Amino acid sequence: MGIREDVVEMARNARAASRKLASLDRGTKDRALNGIADALLAQSDLVRAENGRDVAAAKEAGLSAAMVDRLTLTPARIQAMAAGVREVVALPDPVGEVTSMWLRPNGLRIGRMRIPLGVIGVIYESRPNVTIDAAALCLKSGNAAILRGGSEAVHSNRVLGRIMTEQMVAAGIPAAAIQVMPTTDRAAVDALLEQEESIDVIIPRGGEELIRKVVAKSRIPVLKHYKGVCHVFVDADANPKKARNIVMNAKAQRPGVCNAMETLLIHGGIAEDFLALIVPALTQAGVELRGCPMTRHFVPGMKAATDEDWTTEYNDMVLAIRVVDDIDMAIDHIQKYGSDHTDAIVTENYSNAQKFIREVNSSSVMVNASTRFSDGFQYGLGAEIGISTTRLHAYGPMGLVELTTTKYVVYGEGQVRES
Amino acid sequence: MGIREDVVEMARNARAASRKLASLDRGTKDRALNGIADALLAQSDLVRAENGRDVAAAKEAGLSAAMVDRLTLTPARIQAMAAGVREVVALPDPVGEVTSMWLRPNGLRIGRMRIPLGVIGVIYESRPNVTIDAAALCLKSGNAAILRGGSEAVHSNRVLGRIMTEQMVAAGIPAAAIQVMPTTDRAAVDALLEQEESIDVIIPRGGEELIRKVVAKSRIPVLKHYKGVCHVFVDADANPKKARNIVMNAKAQRPGVCNAMETLLIHGGIAEDFLALIVPALTQAGVELRGCPMTRHFVPGMKAATDEDWTTEYNDMVLAIRVVDDIDMAIDHIQKYGSDHTDAIVTENYSNAQKFIREVNSSSVMVNASTRFSDGFQYGLGAEIGISTTRLHAYGPMGLVELTTTKYVVYGEGQVRES
Repeated sequence: MGIREDVVEMARNARAASRKLASLDRGTKDRALNGIADALLAQSDLVRAENGRDVAAAKEAGLSAAMVDRLTLTPARIQAMAAGVREVVALPDPVGEVTSMWLRPNGLRIGRMRIPLGVIGVIYESRPNVTIDAAALCLKSGNAAILRGGSEAVHSNRVLGRIMTEQMVAAGIPAAAIQVMPTTDRAAVDALLEQEESIDVIIPRGGEELIRKVVAKSRIPVLKHYKGVCHVFVDADANPKKARNIVMNAKAQRPGVCNAMETLLIHGGIAEDFLALIVPALTQAGVELRGCPMTRHFVPGMKAATDEDWTTEYNDMVLAIRVVDDIDMAIDHIQKYGSDHTDAIVTENYSNAQKFIREVNSSSVMVNASTRFSDGFQYGLGAEIGISTTRLHAYGPMGLVELTTTKYVVYGEGQVRES
Repeated sequence: MGIREDVVEMARNARAASRKLASLDRGTKDRALNGIADALLAQSDLVRAENGRDVAAAKEAGLSAAMVDRLTLTPARIQAMAAGVREVVALPDPVGEVTSMWLRPNGLRIGRMRIPLGVIGVIYESRPNVTIDAAALCLKSGNAAILRGGSEAVHSNRVLGRIMTEQMVAAGIPAAAIQVMPTTDRAAVDALLEQEESIDVIIPRGGEELIRKVVAKSRIPVLKHYKGVCHVFVDADANPKKARNIVMNAKAQRPGVCNAMETLLIHGGIAEDFLALIVPALTQAGVELRGCPMTRHFVPGMKAATDEDWTTEYNDMVLAIRVVDDIDMAIDHIQKYGSDHTDAIVTENYSNAQKFIREVNSSSVMVNASTRFSDGFQYGLGAEIGISTTRLHAYGPMGLVELTTTKYVVYGEGQVRES
């Protein structure tokens, strides 16, 4: 059989499995998940041996040290994967929850009940832990999943898939509930993105380039975020100490992630003082600064920011700084250049806090908190499958609940419609 | 300027207007809506005159009497349109509602706040009342809208658009908040479906052919339902009187709509008795019947149902009938042939009712009620922009709330992230 036929069959099998999964009780799902966690630890040596083949190939291919590190499964990382699965076990099962129910004048009781989305395709890059992570979330929420990792992790992903299949089957769950694509052929991804009859949603996890490719080719709806150009606006009434802590944390605590700040906006009325406070701290932390003309007026010698800087996700120790006239100009800047990810205001002014919350419609809007909190675990969702920066279905960090939809359930006693 | 440039500009203007609309208070929106309702009545003669041009052209083009009737705006229909707008005025504004808020251990308060989707494209067929209907729902939920009606209604839609623009501007709302496409050029629809930077969602309203065309061409997510192949399953423990009433109502009360029943499933244990009761009633009502072999065994002479019948939305006085062994076979039939619209069981058996509700994951699942209730007004949503039979974003009848999403709002006191 060709690649395309293989993929069509995987997708059909996933659809068939999803119907069984949808009405599985929590006990069965948790049993399979605990089995997977146990097996990961028990078969740690096997996993490391297969992972070793990927790591050796990566080194031979001359991948960067950072890439090789991301690919490598150490005993500690395998333990962390198993612990992650147990955290999913501990989460409540969203399926079957009736989120609301009301009574109509004709006696009909109408409610909304959570059900799984169906079949989820996950396309991701080199980290093999995503295989276990994504599978656990899909399984717990009653969705079938087809997982397609990076070709450089194919041996690791195959062995992880095999371990999951064994444990699911032992728990009485169809083997096709979670399928790891065994091939590294790119044509398989193209074929996957055409299975709109069998797959309900695609979740890509990786860089902007990966996501743009997936969106361009997919006939299936994609839950996505392209980039995180997050802003902190330091208002005239900001508490300087809070502002300093938040700016330093949002930029420098972990600059390589999507919820790190990329642009700092400062109210003109306090710009001179605040720049005098923050620029030495940022510089000392190793952050490269790029400023608007007014910023450079206060801090001569700073590199100039271009228009491109305002839309760039550096993912690095680089920060663009702009001085704005007022909160309206800050909000305009965020609407024009932002990415709908996470934006924060630092202020002690009640009205400005409320205005910022109301008028900035990014997926996360914050007052006096670091943008780094924008994350499913930090929000208390218990897990995160990704962050959506488009408004349909889910907006912001997505947990188990975002892997479900609701159907209407209607309880009657023989009612018929008059008109 | 060419058509494409016109559409790009409409879409950009809509995006700009949507930012203003998103933070409008309810009073302003309701003032504009009441103005529209008043103006529809005051300018009823003008509307009818413009509509008369469409009707004359339709007659000249030889459109069917049914099509001409759908196109025609009588004084009563204009009054109904105005009344529909006032019903939307009476509905609560979903925007700004905080649907939940929780406290994290670090003191952050995190909530989810409803915001509009942004810009909605509505593509529909001949009925001009959709122009007012859809515009009112979009405006109330703070969304900008671009409306593209059928070419046969272009004069009617233009005058309705003009009336809405005047009233919005009078209320201080940007004219681009609701735009009626003034052209009948098909290239404009194609161009509209490419504006993924400016338009957030497309809602097509019309037949399956229209919707398939829109989905095939659109780069923008589409909220859609292709068809309604609704089932009623009469279980062995059904109350015969309830079953008879529900079957007759679901099939014959208004057969031309998507929530009418197309296939009747009957438990084998009561098939002979129930067919003896229901076949004369259906036949007398003028319903053409098509049966499976077992049905025809009990009712000799009935036309045979083919595999195609099980997937056909007749929208007419035609019904396919199948006798099934048990509830599992009924559920299998619905999963295999159904359209995820609305499916009902008639039973007095508690376990079977619960099983049907749990295992049938159509967008509406009913016990002892007519499928005809599947509708935003009947469910008490107050309005309906359409019915979604795909699971992302919304599933089932969509009201004002389904034209919104939620953003995360985070209230802190200077918190930063430790790890």
